[in-house]
Formats: sequence, C-alpha cells, structure tokens
Amino acid sequence: MTSIKIIDGGVTAPQGYSAWGLRAGIKPGKTNRDMAMIRTGQKAAVAGVFTKNLVKAAPVKWDKGIVNAGKKAGAVVVNTGFANACTGEQGDRDCRASAELTASLLGLDADEVLLGSTGVIGGRLPMDKIEAGIRALVPELKDTPEAAALAAEAIMTTDTRPKQYALEFDLGGKTCRMGGMCKGSGMIHPNLGTMLCYITTDAAVDKATLQETLAAVADDTFNMISVDGDTSTNDTVLLLANGMAGNGPLTDQDAAVFRAALFEMLKYLSMRIAEDGEGATKLFEATVCHAADRSSARTLAKSVITSSLTKAAIYGRDANWGRILCAMGYSGANFDPDKVDIIFESANGRMTIVENGVAADYSEETAKLILSADKVTALIDVHDGQASATAWGCDLTHEYVSINADYRS
Amino acid sequence: MTSIKIIDGGVTAPQGYSAWGLRAGIKPGKTNRDMAMIRTGQKAAVAGVFTKNLVKAAPVKWDKGIVNAGKKAGAVVVNTGFANACTGEQGDRDCRASAELTASLLGLDADEVLLGSTGVIGGRLPMDKIEAGIRALVPELKDTPEAAALAAEAIMTTDTRPKQYALEFDLGGKTCRMGGMCKGSGMIHPNLGTMLCYITTDAAVDKATLQETLAAVADDTFNMISVDGDTSTNDTVLLLANGMAGNGPLTDQDAAVFRAALFEMLKYLSMRIAEDGEGATKLFEATVCHAADRSSARTLAKSVITSSLTKAAIYGRDANWGRILCAMGYSGANFDPDKVDIIFESANGRMTIVENGVAADYSEETAKLILSADKVTALIDVHDGQASATAWGCDLTHEYVSINADYRS
Repeated sequence: MTSIKIIDGGVTAPQGYSAWGLRAGIKPGKTNRDMAMIRTGQKAAVAGVFTKNLVKAAPVKWDKGIVNAGKKAGAVVVNTGFANACTGEQGDRDCRASAELTASLLGLDADEVLLGSTGVIGGRLPMDKIEAGIRALVPELKDTPEAAALAAEAIMTTDTRPKQYALEFDLGGKTCRMGGMCKGSGMIHPNLGTMLCYITTDAAVDKATLQETLAAVADDTFNMISVDGDTSTNDTVLLLANGMAGNGPLTDQDAAVFRAALFEMLKYLSMRIAEDGEGATKLFEATVCHAADRSSARTLAKSVITSSLTKAAIYGRDANWGRILCAMGYSGANFDPDKVDIIFESANGRMTIVENGVAADYSEETAKLILSADKVTALIDVHDGQASATAWGCDLTHEYVSINADYRS
Repeated sequence: MTSIKIIDGGVTAPQGYSAWGLRAGIKPGKTNRDMAMIRTGQKAAVAGVFTKNLVKAAPVKWDKGIVNAGKKAGAVVVNTGFANACTGEQGDRDCRASAELTASLLGLDADEVLLGSTGVIGGRLPMDKIEAGIRALVPELKDTPEAAALAAEAIMTTDTRPKQYALEFDLGGKTCRMGGMCKGSGMIHPNLGTMLCYITTDAAVDKATLQETLAAVADDTFNMISVDGDTSTNDTVLLLANGMAGNGPLTDQDAAVFRAALFEMLKYLSMRIAEDGEGATKLFEATVCHAADRSSARTLAKSVITSSLTKAAIYGRDANWGRILCAMGYSGANFDPDKVDIIFESANGRMTIVENGVAADYSEETAKLILSADKVTALIDVHDGQASATAWGCDLTHEYVSINADYRS
C-alpha cells in the first residue's frame, strides 16, 4: 500500500487553494475571528454530506443545491455567531446575497460559492457585517500555512482549539495533497456530516467517486462521534477537489489510496471534535468487536459513548461498567449480555473489568489510574460474529452545563 | 363521570395492605433506610410492566415469571444499594433465597413474593444483610400511613424526597382505594416501566383487565418521562389488586373509572420522578398538539424533553427555542418546520416565542421570568393533524454531573 504522509498545514496545503480568517464583528462582545473564506484557483469538483435533521439551515439547503446539481465551486464562505437556521425565506435571501457578493468580487457565478454558518439558531444574519467581512476577506486570501490557520481559528464557536490537518499521498505517480479544517463542539451527534468541516485536495477525482468516497468515509468517522446526542441543523462536510496535482483517472489502487487518505483525514478531525466536545476533559473511545453485523456493532458503540451516565462516570474516573452494559442493552441492537467482555485501555494501562457479563476480579485503584488518561478506550467483545465498529465521544462535565446554560448571554 | 378523590397516604391506604421500611445496612457509609416490604392480607392479582433493556436485572426476570404465570402475590420486598443486575446465575439464586425466606416467614409460596432491587449494577447482593433485613421487616409490618411513608423512603436512591400518592373512587357502589410509591431519579428513560413503582388497590379487577390497563396507562405516563435518556436495567411497575373492597365484576363504566384513577396515579408519580431527576431544579413539560398521529406527537414531545442542550437552556432560564426545533427535527418524526408555533407557559406567565417556525416578537426578560418557575411547559403546535402527547423531563444541571461522576464513592 502506498504510504500516506502527515504534513504541516491545513486547507491551503494542496496546490491552488488560498484562505483567510478575520473578525467581522458578528459575535457581540467577543474579540475572536468569526469569518473565513477558502478560494480555489482552479474550480473544484465538490462532494458534500449534510445534516439529516428535518430542520435544515439556509446555507445547508444552499450547498446541497450546488452539490446535487454537480456544479464545480470556486470558494467557500463561513461565518460563526449565527446559524442562519429557522430564519424562513429571509435566511435564503441572505444566503443568495452573500454568494452574489463573493462571486462578484472573485469573478465567479453565485452558485459556485459554497456557504456555511454556525452559532445561535433563529437569529437573522447581520448582513451589513457579513458583507463587510466578505469585502475584507477577498484581498487577504493567501496560500500560506498561516492563512489556513487563521481560517481554522475563525470557524470556531465553543471549540477551545482550532482543528486542522494535512496529508500527502501519491496517485499514479503524482504527488497529491489533502488539507482539512473543522469545528465542533456542542450539538454534536452527526447524522451524515458534522457541524462544519471543509476538506481541500488537489487530486483529480471525478464527482461521482468523490461523493461516494466521502459518504462512505464520513459514515465511519463523523457519523460515529457524539458530544451530546443532539444532531445539529447545520452539519456540513464539504470536499473540494481541484485536480491541480495533475493525476490521471483513478485506477482501483489509486481510489483505495484516496479513500485511505480521506479516512485518515476525517478520522483525525472527528476525534479532535470529540475530545474538544463542550466541557470535555477527555476523549472516550468505544470499540465493539465480534458483533453479529456492522449495524449492530455501530449501534452498540454509539450507544455507549452517547450515554450521559457512562460519560459522567468517565469524567469521575469511575469504572462503573454496569452503565456500559446498560447502554448496550437499551441500544436496540441484539447481543447476549452473558457473553460480553469489557477491557479498559489507556496510556496508563489495560485491564479486563467484565468477563462473560459479570465483574472480573480487578482493582478499582488501577481502573481509576487507567481512566485518568486524556484518552480512554473501552474494548467491548460481544462474541457474536465478525463485525466491529469504533465510536468517539467525550466525558460529561460541569463545564458542559455551564456552557449551555448561558450560551447566548 | 364518577369523581376520583385524592386522599392522604400511600401503599397502605387500600384495605388489607401493610408495609414497612428500615435500614438493613446495605448502602455503605450512609444512614438512610434501604429495605422495604409490602404485604397484602388477601392475595392480590398482579399486573407488571418491565424494562425493555436487553440487560435485565435478576429481580425483573423473577417478577416477570410471576406476572406471566398469572400467579397471585402476597408480598413485595425491595432493596436499594445494589441493582442485582449483571450478576449472572448467582443473582438468580439470590432472588430465590430472598423470596423463600420471606415466604417462610409470611406463610406464602416463594413464587408469591415479588422482588425489586435498585442501585449499583454489577455487585452481588450482600445476602447476610438482605436476610437480616427481611427478618427485621416482617414483625414491623403495619397498615398505617406512617408505615407507607417509611416504605416510600426506604426505596429512594439519589431521590431527594419520597414519592407516594393515594386515591379513592367508587366501583359499582363500593368505595375503592389505590395507593402508590415509586423512586427515580437517574437512569430514567423508561421503556415500559420506570425504576421502581408499586401500586396497591383493594379493587377487585381481573388479571387480564389489570394488565391491559396498566400497560396502556404506563405508556402515556412512565413511558413519557426522561431524566437522562438512559433506560435502566431494573425498571419495574407492579400493580397489586387484592379485591378486598368487595366490588363485583367491572362494568364498562367501572373499567373507565379504574383506568382514570390509575392514570391519575401514574401521571402524578411519573411527574414527581421527572421533577426530582438527578440534580434537577425544575419540571420541564412538553406538549405537542395537532400532530399527524399519536406516534409522531409522542416522538416529538420526548425528543424535546430528552435533548441535553434544551435541558441546559431550561436550567439557564434561556428561551433558546432553536434547540427545541432542532430536537424535533432530529427526532425522526415528520412535521413541517415552517408551520410550528411554540408557547412557553408557567405560573409566571405565558408567551408565544415562535410563530410559523420563526421567532415571534417577544421580550427576553419576560421569557426569563416565565422560565424561572418550578414547572415550565413548552406548548408546541405543529398544525398537522389531531393527535397530541405530553412528556415530562427536567433541566440538566451541574449537580447531575456531580451526582453521576462519583455515584459509587
């Protein structure tokens, strides 16, 4: 298998992409950056996966229209502060106005401009600030790592740190790159997509393969994380491929490499979202193995990392494994509780705590030590078949409540 | 319609029932009562609904056996501290030993003794303390209100107050009574049943009607509450009817009265569980009206009261209605977001905050005042049909995290 190399940078790592992030003043009383733009010099094929929430934000509907029409795209504009969801027809008009202004400044058609919004649901976008922000962003666009970092910073809401990643791989003898950025960190329980994630690549990949690969890989990454069980109205993952690496049509092996690179990218970013979930102090990973089928494995793993009681126990470094078995039991997936083994694992050690559905002979002190690491994994063997799945979440802390009890103040 | 009168007392209010609660020392380092017993002088027909969690506690399996066999029962024994779940065959043996000891002391068969356990999942029952507790309970059994109150207190875990209720009604000219007690307050997201709930009545009701009525009423009460989305391994609702009121076979009107009384009983107790959810400061009620069908109405109402983000906003007295629409959107039920109206209502006032899916012109200050009451209702009109449903939950607070991060310490 061709190697996939981790490199420095983010969305500007592939050829032809520039970006920027700045403060447009959309979030009242805060000083951080709140608008970002990505530009591709050569128009890019676009794949996208979006929230399955019946309530969809205006920019989600806008982007879906572009992706479904198979249009190529030239730019992405993102704001934080307001989600532009539950804003009625005014929200759609605000999307069009944003796209038209960006298009006129960059020499594009309006439906070549992708849009993303995140923040409070229900309030109208402050269009004067959005428009001033777009005008300020265009002249700043650069293809440097610093520019990518500013863009990643500008899409944050309650995230405590920016999330970006870049990879290099080889397709048909040509060096290709892939860059990505995303943001969490509440209302995270994606159903095909997460809050906002933008991936750029200079690989030449046809639209059908791009969409198919993105949908499959997102299913095993973003669709396997949860912070609070709430599926957002704005979840969006966009993948832009501008073809500037100059590779030819993908062979089967090339397609496998591209898929592996995208999996590495999305797995990395989705784990970063899970560990930076609102108020989180640690990443909590659950791997279910030997399940009867893939669907059961996924359902069981997700139920464990979504359980409020399990998440609170992980926060308290309490090996309260009964809550894990309980969460598996109400998940709806079938398994035999009397055949379950559970192992806790972290940088601090590894220990079997459940064998055949009952407590193993283990030390609570050692368990607490294992659960004190920044990343904790529960390995759950259901001895029922050959399928496995991994899900990522975080602990439930006092800080989560603090953040969400006064999010708008 | 015959009137249903609220009276003082609990499970000993109907004729023929005695009870007691005491400290058997099962919970380490705590001083509260932890074992309860209910006795009926004349053996009672029994209906029961139980957790749908695939992982079922040993006493749930024990009680299901008795209910399914159509056996009459003479006593109920309940312990807190340990759930006797995930305890393998030893758990079943401990159930049998508890029932046999109780039966020998009361002159019953072992399969006339119902059992309930609640507490930590996974640890074996301390049988020496359980057996000493049973021996201590039997001579104390009394038919007084004080005895019922001690039993209600003894089944509490993280509950902050005991929950009991008593009603009087008329069947075919005979005065009948119904008494009940239950406990929450975490791992509450029942699927046919709640943690533990025991209802006594002296009405004569045949076993088939008893079971049918209990299942239907539990579906509109206990199955419509949630504290944390976690369905317990131990959920049990038992209804004992000893017939000592002397009423004849139920007419259709009698059956309606009995059902109305049971609805009043279970609705009251399930609201008490919701408002005393772990860490809760208020009861949060969601009523969905004009839904396309009953199933949609139920799904939408439950999704709203289960959403962590909505619950945290209610705690913060923040009219962040976007989270309510968002929770409806990912619930899986169908509705038109552009037709939704939302009203907030409490003892402090009533205000429309959403009309046709977008923000109404409302005052944030007044909204905060309304949300400051002990009980807050969201009235959600989806303008889509004739069905309605109500669900009950609570707010998500720092205290919930504190309780569950160190539950076992």
